[in-house]
Amino acid sequence: MADATEPTQTPATIPPEGGDAPKEPSKSELKKRAKEAEKAKKAAEKAAKQAELEAQKAAAEVDFATELYGKLPLNQSQSRPRRTHTQIATLTPEMDGTPVLIRARVQTSRMQGSKMVFFNLRQRTESVQALLIVAPGKVSKQMAKWAGGLSMESIVLVEGTVKKAPEIIKNATIGNVEIHISQIHLVSGIEGVLPFNVEDATRPDAEIEANEEVQFKRVLLDTRLNNRVIDLRTQTNQAVFKLQHAIGGLFREYLEGQGFTEIHSPKLQAAATESGASVFKVNYFKGNAFLAQSPQLAKQMAIAADFERVYEIGPVFRAEDSNTHRHMTEFIGLDLEMAIEEHYHEVMELLDGLFLHMFRSLRQKYSREIEAVRRQFPADEFKWRDGPEGTLKLSFREAVDLLVEDGVPREKLDDIDTENEKRLGRLVRAKYDTDYFIIDKFPMALRPFYTMPDPEDPTLSNSYDFFMRGEEILSGAQRVHDPTLLAEGMRAKGIDPASMSSYLDAFKMGCPPHGGGGIGLERVLMLFLKLNNIRRASLFPRDPKRLEP
Amino acid sequence: MADATEPTQTPATIPPEGGDAPKEPSKSELKKRAKEAEKAKKAAEKAAKQAELEAQKAAAEVDFATELYGKLPLNQSQSRPRRTHTQIATLTPEMDGTPVLIRARVQTSRMQGSKMVFFNLRQRTESVQALLIVAPGKVSKQMAKWAGGLSMESIVLVEGTVKKAPEIIKNATIGNVEIHISQIHLVSGIEGVLPFNVEDATRPDAEIEANEEVQFKRVLLDTRLNNRVIDLRTQTNQAVFKLQHAIGGLFREYLEGQGFTEIHSPKLQAAATESGASVFKVNYFKGNAFLAQSPQLAKQMAIAADFERVYEIGPVFRAEDSNTHRHMTEFIGLDLEMAIEEHYHEVMELLDGLFLHMFRSLRQKYSREIEAVRRQFPADEFKWRDGPEGTLKLSFREAVDLLVEDGVPREKLDDIDTENEKRLGRLVRAKYDTDYFIIDKFPMALRPFYTMPDPEDPTLSNSYDFFMRGEEILSGAQRVHDPTLLAEGMRAKGIDPASMSSYLDAFKMGCPPHGGGGIGLERVLMLFLKLNNIRRASLFPRDPKRLEP
Repeated sequence: MADATEPTQTPATIPPEGGDAPKEPSKSELKKRAKEAEKAKKAAEKAAKQAELEAQKAAAEVDFATELYGKLPLNQSQSRPRRTHTQIATLTPEMDGTPVLIRARVQTSRMQGSKMVFFNLRQRTESVQALLIVAPGKVSKQMAKWAGGLSMESIVLVEGTVKKAPEIIKNATIGNVEIHISQIHLVSGIEGVLPFNVEDATRPDAEIEANEEVQFKRVLLDTRLNNRVIDLRTQTNQAVFKLQHAIGGLFREYLEGQGFTEIHSPKLQAAATESGASVFKVNYFKGNAFLAQSPQLAKQMAIAADFERVYEIGPVFRAEDSNTHRHMTEFIGLDLEMAIEEHYHEVMELLDGLFLHMFRSLRQKYSREIEAVRRQFPADEFKWRDGPEGTLKLSFREAVDLLVEDGVPREKLDDIDTENEKRLGRLVRAKYDTDYFIIDKFPMALRPFYTMPDPEDPTLSNSYDFFMRGEEILSGAQRVHDPTLLAEGMRAKGIDPASMSSYLDAFKMGCPPHGGGGIGLERVLMLFLKLNNIRRASLFPRDPKRLEP
Repeated sequence: MADATEPTQTPATIPPEGGDAPKEPSKSELKKRAKEAEKAKKAAEKAAKQAELEAQKAAAEVDFATELYGKLPLNQSQSRPRRTHTQIATLTPEMDGTPVLIRARVQTSRMQGSKMVFFNLRQRTESVQALLIVAPGKVSKQMAKWAGGLSMESIVLVEGTVKKAPEIIKNATIGNVEIHISQIHLVSGIEGVLPFNVEDATRPDAEIEANEEVQFKRVLLDTRLNNRVIDLRTQTNQAVFKLQHAIGGLFREYLEGQGFTEIHSPKLQAAATESGASVFKVNYFKGNAFLAQSPQLAKQMAIAADFERVYEIGPVFRAEDSNTHRHMTEFIGLDLEMAIEEHYHEVMELLDGLFLHMFRSLRQKYSREIEAVRRQFPADEFKWRDGPEGTLKLSFREAVDLLVEDGVPREKLDDIDTENEKRLGRLVRAKYDTDYFIIDKFPMALRPFYTMPDPEDPTLSNSYDFFMRGEEILSGAQRVHDPTLLAEGMRAKGIDPASMSSYLDAFKMGCPPHGGGGIGLERVLMLFLKLNNIRRASLFPRDPKRLEP
């Protein structure tokens, strides 16, 4: 580089000394030159305009380009201006005139003429309308064209101003405001083709059927599950999983208030216990392990270890080759176990209190989410008895009698199968006006070896199931805490007590009477909302035919 | 059976008609008879007394006997008198004279003479002294003898009265009261021999070493884990698992306050992803599945599905054949993932806030449990910087420099191994007086393919680890949300992008910039309390050699 003190070169623009003086041009020559000058001027103007347009276009596309090459500050954390982002859910007409910064999905974008773009912007369960209008010096036509062509499901960051909507916007959940956009940046684009539209995936079946002439696209469950990440973006599914979160939270909240301790028991087990047939085998170093079908054994051992009252929220695994609407190979168990002071009904009543707490809180605090799901999955409101008469409790015998009265042959009712469960649900709703009830005192023959027999009639047991809309959502019982009786029970069900020695040992070392139950989280969610298929209640469902995504 | 109206038979005791009248006895004969009568009377009295004693003994033992044969109301829920049970933790001297009903473990029972039995009764972390004193018409000597002989770890139900203790009872955690027992029932006895005493299992090593002449029994970790149900009953372990519960609860509490949604992702996966070597293979019907090493992929997919901020508490599985003090094959992951607005330090700072919330709350609300653990596992109090200077944050380079200054050759510090981590922990404590710190900006080469490179220096990454007492407890980073860059990253680490197509597809369909981290629950618990072995922080630990109990 040249030293700053070095003298500059003589400029080359000074005319050479001496030489010819210019000739006077002819008239025709002058005319020709004027025409050429005019032409050049026009060309220059055109080029300038073109350059300006290119520059505008380039500016609009720079975000997308830089993202691809990893240079975008937004994505790569190069700067941190600490600007506040606004949630769509918080927008109100009172904010009229307020500048906002919103990151959202483009649910739809639509050009109107060449000067206006309408967006439906979405965040989780909420959406709002936004407008980009061409304005000289602010928003170019090219910018509008680029923005109007943004793919559905792109993520954009918009700067703009809140405006009270002139009339309620029907397509948006926040319909009383709109956003007037001043700047729009692309945060994340779409590569390839969306398997389906989120709008199509959100449409209720009834609307598709009522508008046959439109030929709305119907998105089948399998297509949804194959592309679950897109499917989960529907406002319906955002609400479903807020409600799944709520149910788990309410389960915890209630039990914490009742002195329960949360435990985490191992899913890897040495033996295929409980009922050997439906357990997954795992290659465990040089040997095998098995996936726990439930935390049953561990939670009872925690009671023998003086934990008094325990709960667990965790995955349970069932290797049943069953593809029904209500079975999965992996689901979330809401399990609890507690020491009994006097009577196993202490447990049953606590469980009932738990469900009532859930139902009441869901209705009180999550009506907006329930409503969002109803829009796509219409259902009768879930009913329970909330008065002083309390929850309906039937004995197994009474339940059988109800079915017999309704015409089911008694000899087919040693057990109540899925079909008769549903029938019973309908009978109970008709007779008692409730979707939620308890059946107590199941026959001992139907229950696992660790169930405590009834002290008066050993063909019955101290066990219960809870039902929602005619489907079982909880199974529970008092357990056998006496090691001799427990070993007898094992032998009676063809299990070698030696194969479960560490479980049996826990009771030999003293254990209080206890009982509990296990709830299927997804079943409660499915039945409360009437989603009709358990897969809709699971983030990434697993069944014998599905391990992905 | 005879009809009730049938006449009864003539009694056989009426003397037969006729026959010889009795002879007058001689004097010697009378003396002899008197002597015999006296003897018979004494024998009868003795027999009566014996019978009474037997009856008392039998009455005392009836609970135990009936339990064995399944007839005990207490255990079989035949009656429900609804009597209130009292928790030992709630006893105070102000309750002097109050009748109570307490169910508890017999930690120790000791006869003093033939008329008094001292019990140490235990419930979870608390214990109280109880006394049974022989009193005519109330408590027989036999009853006392039976009670004094109750096995340690039996569960008893005692009725009695609270008495202010004449002086503080050192062996009980509630030392200012004692219970005067009027009745005692056996709820659950012991079958066989306890593998070790709970008292022995609770004794600190230092006490064993300081009292060599006593030869206290030392209970080794393996013995404890083989008999985990007994081991878990120590007051230390009851406190440890109350604290485990607390840490999980505080994690949740903090994140709920920050707008996070709890998710449950499947543990069964189609492919052995992330790093194929350390994944367990599962027989899945006619094919295979693999156990998730972490919810990494699922939680990122939840972000691509617009969940914005998610957390999960669940088991993670590592098929590493490693038997160190800090590795298990199954542990509880406290995972979170969140969309980033501007900079990945948003995530790092939120995680820091989370840990500070945990540490502060543990100290404020769980001092009694921490103290209970300290009695057996003495440790320096866990230190963190809670002032305005904030948590210590070092870059990876600065951490390396600290080690180099301390004499570690720089060429050995491409990575910081476990030993150097511990050394760094000591150096940091000496220099900065904290057991908790963050290392930011790890070399890209040390991180998984989904880690976002630093925008200025691609050899570094937007990633961090958190440390407690010189051991890593959290690993986290900004993730790559661009599908092209992500596929490149996979290829660079030898992973075929086609094998992870459903993960990759999530980003092709648009995903906001995001980051997160995963915390090992048991590690936080172990290091906060300085338990020195992670197995002590797990209810039923799993390692390559342990699948039971």
